[in-house]
Amino acid sequence: MEVNYSNIKVIGFDADDTLWVNETYFRDAEMEFAKLLSQYETVNKIDQELFKMEMKNLPLYGYGVKGFVLSMVEMALELSNNDVSNATIDAILKIGKDMLNKPVELLEGVEETLVELSKNYRLILVTKGDLLDQERKLEKSGLTKYFHHIEVLSDKQEANYSKLLNHLDIKPSEFLMVGNSLKSDILPLVNIKAQAIHVPFHTTWQHETVSSKEANGKGYKTVESLIHILEEL
Amino acid sequence: MEVNYSNIKVIGFDADDTLWVNETYFRDAEMEFAKLLSQYETVNKIDQELFKMEMKNLPLYGYGVKGFVLSMVEMALELSNNDVSNATIDAILKIGKDMLNKPVELLEGVEETLVELSKNYRLILVTKGDLLDQERKLEKSGLTKYFHHIEVLSDKQEANYSKLLNHLDIKPSEFLMVGNSLKSDILPLVNIKAQAIHVPFHTTWQHETVSSKEANGKGYKTVESLIHILEEL
Repeated sequence: MEVNYSNIKVIGFDADDTLWVNETYFRDAEMEFAKLLSQYETVNKIDQELFKMEMKNLPLYGYGVKGFVLSMVEMALELSNNDVSNATIDAILKIGKDMLNKPVELLEGVEETLVELSKNYRLILVTKGDLLDQERKLEKSGLTKYFHHIEVLSDKQEANYSKLLNHLDIKPSEFLMVGNSLKSDILPLVNIKAQAIHVPFHTTWQHETVSSKEANGKGYKTVESLIHILEEL
Repeated sequence: MEVNYSNIKVIGFDADDTLWVNETYFRDAEMEFAKLLSQYETVNKIDQELFKMEMKNLPLYGYGVKGFVLSMVEMALELSNNDVSNATIDAILKIGKDMLNKPVELLEGVEETLVELSKNYRLILVTKGDLLDQERKLEKSGLTKYFHHIEVLSDKQEANYSKLLNHLDIKPSEFLMVGNSLKSDILPLVNIKAQAIHVPFHTTWQHETVSSKEANGKGYKTVESLIHILEEL
């Protein structure tokens, strides 16, 4: 495990579940959705089927709340064999609007960490999902002032990161990414020879999980919460 | 009317209805939607109400197909007084998926224009709407190679353009924007002292129209189709 932070000039932060709560709201929404359809199937089955529907629609809809709501509507029609009531469809739309209107809840130590790191590093925000929704959350968070650059990507794969670093004129060896998702925030960076620090969130979307085989022996550190990064740098 | 292109180094292009057909597909979708609900209201009334619903939801959903589909579903419930069939909801979802799957139809002379201009200028693409959908359309268009930079904005107001030019280190006096929407592609640029050329498309979304009073006397040129820009520069 080679970890060397002495060259780092720029630090990238993931947003959802790294700076603020996000996945929890999706879990709550899934629970509400399962309750709405409980006459048709078990919670467990509804959860599984919704995930499959989201994966089916991901190439077309991408990440974010709007695609999630469209998948819930489609799932409700399918699960109920076109028997679901208009009131339930309406309730699903409302789940989505409530998600988009949620206040932003910062995770512990986030602002202190950014204050400290911004003294010595250039900080950028690298998130994926819906453009408007991410911009709105950043605005609500009050954290905009700490970031030199905000990038919303449609996906977070190696090529997306390489392109971004190239565009911002940052050498991989000078870049450290911090985030909660091994799949999206850590492994792609390790693979392009940048650095990465993993800050796990208590809930991980099934789509973002990776096997220990994939992550094994990769050169990244894990810290318990964001503020602990300060001890590493 | 002051128009001076001698300082121009970078040309920005809008995408939808400037490089490729877009609004036409929305008009077709609205027509299909009105047909689906024709038992409840006249086509005219449905059109008006859908537009109002889109405007109501715009701050939350932003631009793009997914928000449009969510507004259609909500409108169907409302217009029918919760009487609409599941088959109709399903048909609405399908309208959205068909829109996202549409092939990209380039407008006349687009590729020739880009080939010529890319010899002497740095070209960038500046579009708004859904990130993934815009990236997919660009990919399908085969035009990626002509652009030094692609920017998808959540909105196209003066502040969005100023921030972009600042980020890309482009002086307003060196920047020319080309697009079909007076509201989004032309007037904000004129207001920040950049140049703009208007290339009207035969259909303009009601939300993008501006009064002649707003546009009157502003320093921009209008050309009939994209290729005519070559005569201006």
